[in-house]
Amino acid sequence: MKKFLNNVDHMLVESLSGFATAHSDLVEVQFDPTFVARKQKPKNKVALISGGGSGHEPLHAGYVGKGMLDAACPGQVFTSPTPDQMLAAAEAVHAGMGVLFIVKNYAGDVMNFEMATEMLPFEHATVLTSDDCAVVNSTYTTGRRGVAGTVIVEKCVGSLAETGADLASCKALGDKINVRTSSIGAALTSCTVPAAGRPTFDISDSELEMGVGIHGEPGRRRETMREADAIVADMVAAIVHDMEAKQLPTQGDILLLVNGLGATPLMELYLIYNSAAQRLTEKGFRIARSLVGNYTTAIDMAGASLTVCLLDAEITQHWDSPVHTAGLRWGC
Amino acid sequence: MKKFLNNVDHMLVESLSGFATAHSDLVEVQFDPTFVARKQKPKNKVALISGGGSGHEPLHAGYVGKGMLDAACPGQVFTSPTPDQMLAAAEAVHAGMGVLFIVKNYAGDVMNFEMATEMLPFEHATVLTSDDCAVVNSTYTTGRRGVAGTVIVEKCVGSLAETGADLASCKALGDKINVRTSSIGAALTSCTVPAAGRPTFDISDSELEMGVGIHGEPGRRRETMREADAIVADMVAAIVHDMEAKQLPTQGDILLLVNGLGATPLMELYLIYNSAAQRLTEKGFRIARSLVGNYTTAIDMAGASLTVCLLDAEITQHWDSPVHTAGLRWGC
Repeated sequence: MKKFLNNVDHMLVESLSGFATAHSDLVEVQFDPTFVARKQKPKNKVALISGGGSGHEPLHAGYVGKGMLDAACPGQVFTSPTPDQMLAAAEAVHAGMGVLFIVKNYAGDVMNFEMATEMLPFEHATVLTSDDCAVVNSTYTTGRRGVAGTVIVEKCVGSLAETGADLASCKALGDKINVRTSSIGAALTSCTVPAAGRPTFDISDSELEMGVGIHGEPGRRRETMREADAIVADMVAAIVHDMEAKQLPTQGDILLLVNGLGATPLMELYLIYNSAAQRLTEKGFRIARSLVGNYTTAIDMAGASLTVCLLDAEITQHWDSPVHTAGLRWGC
Repeated sequence: MKKFLNNVDHMLVESLSGFATAHSDLVEVQFDPTFVARKQKPKNKVALISGGGSGHEPLHAGYVGKGMLDAACPGQVFTSPTPDQMLAAAEAVHAGMGVLFIVKNYAGDVMNFEMATEMLPFEHATVLTSDDCAVVNSTYTTGRRGVAGTVIVEKCVGSLAETGADLASCKALGDKINVRTSSIGAALTSCTVPAAGRPTFDISDSELEMGVGIHGEPGRRRETMREADAIVADMVAAIVHDMEAKQLPTQGDILLLVNGLGATPLMELYLIYNSAAQRLTEKGFRIARSLVGNYTTAIDMAGASLTVCLLDAEITQHWDSPVHTAGLRWGC
């Protein structure tokens, strides 16, 4: 394992300290219990809190700021944060209108966020994201996994919360976006968890893992490596099939997110985008919004995921609204 | 070699097509000769054009847009664009006040941009960037190499050009920033040029290349892999030594850019930032502005570079001004 680190046990603290210094205009980081919160605490809004294992940066700490999250609770790499982190974050950012947790559907995260809510003295609700259509049930999950579609939920619910909308409305928008969003990933290499020191799985030079999870969990199948168009065609087909299964229209305006898993060059991500956009357009979709880059990573995995969110006027409006975070910024 | 591609010969066209579709609000791409230009052509300003081999994305096409470049000329991977690309770009974006080329100092780029200027019917000037303090003369360079500091030149000169400043003023600002900027990179792995199909250089699991170039050119030395703090200490020392050699003050406000070379997780980049910021602060600098992420890459290289730009009021003002490109965006 070759990584820029000093001591595996201090990696998260050192990285978060760097994050806090680099973005000291935006965020503050607290340790023990550890959470990242907005520097300027807004008033009279639902407090949005997310979190999960580290290693998916910029998710979630990179999405703390105006128009998106109020706080993020980072666990150790690929390890759920603990309930005391979530409680401390909620105490710090609660602004009188309740707390909405946005949680990716992994058993450890779900359990710990549930434990936190049981102790929470504020009104609260949870949006559980489960956009990954690759598999039902997985190494760390009962039910579908939450992956890059979580970014769209955080962005749009963040925008709605900023308007002073109530907790029920924020939860309803998050749940709606989750239903209208499907993702699937493909890995060319494994990732290496620093504490493990070796790749999570073995994969040969002639294979890819179709439907891989963002922790390196197995996907649908191990396939022979093929040209990008063939890989993307299968990914688009899986997403369209999922939308049909959810009885969503398979036409209309969509947001297309091509997400790098950590080690995939932008040049390849745009090539994937080109292929996916052609296929989705042929199927009758209009690519109304696009996002291409590393937004939900799996440490140093070479791979990419596609996410399609079926837009409506409400989602589009909240996607377009100003956001100022380390990981996503426009309009301010 | 495992990459998302269909045919090595079509990779650039497919990737640029995806880029153009994903950012159709911002840019237009022309092929044969190939260049990326702003969709809305501004009037009465110096036209800023950059370019170079592909594989460094988001540099340079990702910096075309309001407040930054008017056009970018992408060559094949790690291959200079040709003079006809630069001439076609200049014809397309010239807005009556001359053309400023921003060129990283590599022999092929310098030669081809010079050939273009000889045929150019407009007033023109060139800013040659050479911020890499690792080595003097290199595989593809006579003199110092231009690397991630080029982003700072493009951002700030782009801002000045937007105000209607004349060609001489734009060139002067670019030259000033180049003098006040020092960079050095370190590689943990090689990159793989798609057309070559194998890593550019061999490096063992216990080594790093200190001072690596963004094409995988040799740096200062092959070193034993060490902890991040020790690597960063050497990089900071090299930069401070370079600033002293250039008779720049080694105190005052700086912009610190921690740049990923393609395959390095954000978590590691922030850990590097933390280490570098501490060391630079101890030396008497104040980190007034920060940028952390993949801004000038070397395809899929695991590695990072540090860039320090000594700020003054003019540079800070132009760094902070609004920018709207695919790769850098704030204030709009």
